Amino acid sequence: MTTIIDATPSDDRELVISRLIDAPRDKVWRCWTEAELLKQWFVPKPWSIGAVDVDVRPGGRSNITMRDPEGNEYPNAGVYLEAVPNEKLVFTDAFTEGWNASQKPFFVGVLTFEDEGGKTRYTARARHWTMEDKEAHEKMGFHEGWGQCADQLEEVARGL
Amino acid sequence: MTTIIDATPSDDRELVISRLIDAPRDKVWRCWTEAELLKQWFVPKPWSIGAVDVDVRPGGRSNITMRDPEGNEYPNAGVYLEAVPNEKLVFTDAFTEGWNASQKPFFVGVLTFEDEGGKTRYTARARHWTMEDKEAHEKMGFHEGWGQCADQLEEVARGL
Repeated sequence: MTTIIDATPSDDRELVISRLIDAPRDKVWRCWTEAELLKQWFVPKPWSIGAVDVDVRPGGRSNITMRDPEGNEYPNAGVYLEAVPNEKLVFTDAFTEGWNASQKPFFVGVLTFEDEGGKTRYTARARHWTMEDKEAHEKMGFHEGWGQCADQLEEVARGL
Repeated sequence: MTTIIDATPSDDRELVISRLIDAPRDKVWRCWTEAELLKQWFVPKPWSIGAVDVDVRPGGRSNITMRDPEGNEYPNAGVYLEAVPNEKLVFTDAFTEGWNASQKPFFVGVLTFEDEGGKTRYTARARHWTMEDKEAHEKMGFHEGWGQCADQLEEVARGL
């Protein structure tokens, strides 16, 4: 299990979780950027991941299909905005690849990976354009879901 | 005066202008990316530009203050999303520097600069998240305003 770390949102439209992951940050980075690894942890089980099609660079696609326990699929299309290996990854659903405005910008995810004695301080911020979206995201179970995923991520990273 | 070129929007939430500018594309690029040059053409006269603070790289700030003929100032904060020298520049008001979600994402601008016999085919696309914003932008005088600015840009580029 990851260790929960205190983290304060930057403003009232942000949700944040922070964890100490028992794996070095290059492995945590790989879990976030390699399709075959993403599939293993990216949604809280018993949900699963269908297709993963990612091109991790500014403007590159981040297209990931989630699948519920009944097998219904939920495609998510987005792009990466910034990718600093082993340090920072930023992505959003506000655009699809090619800088097309999406149907509905919901949030931008800002992930940081910091070394902490060989472990990784992992902080995930979800920033929203409206208070309504932030509150909806929180009610959808942001903290529990991203927390469970962080545990799953740690398990995959430790196995690398 | 720039030569008007036919250009079709990519979808119904996009506005576009395209012009043949009588200057090579490295000079057109400079007009878009150097603060002192931006000040000379970026709003239709008799409006003018106050402060310009830009850092032209993905995630860098694009903060430009416009000034009406009465001297009232209108600050605009945004970021660049992609910057390929002499070829392509993408920016948006959906974020402020540091990937903070802005108060209201209005549009993403996608500019391309293509060589055409020593002149520059300049295409500026404004993509919106909603039809309402696209229509509002059109009514604000997008085509006339961006067209007049293209003429002003050409004049500055030719003087370099």
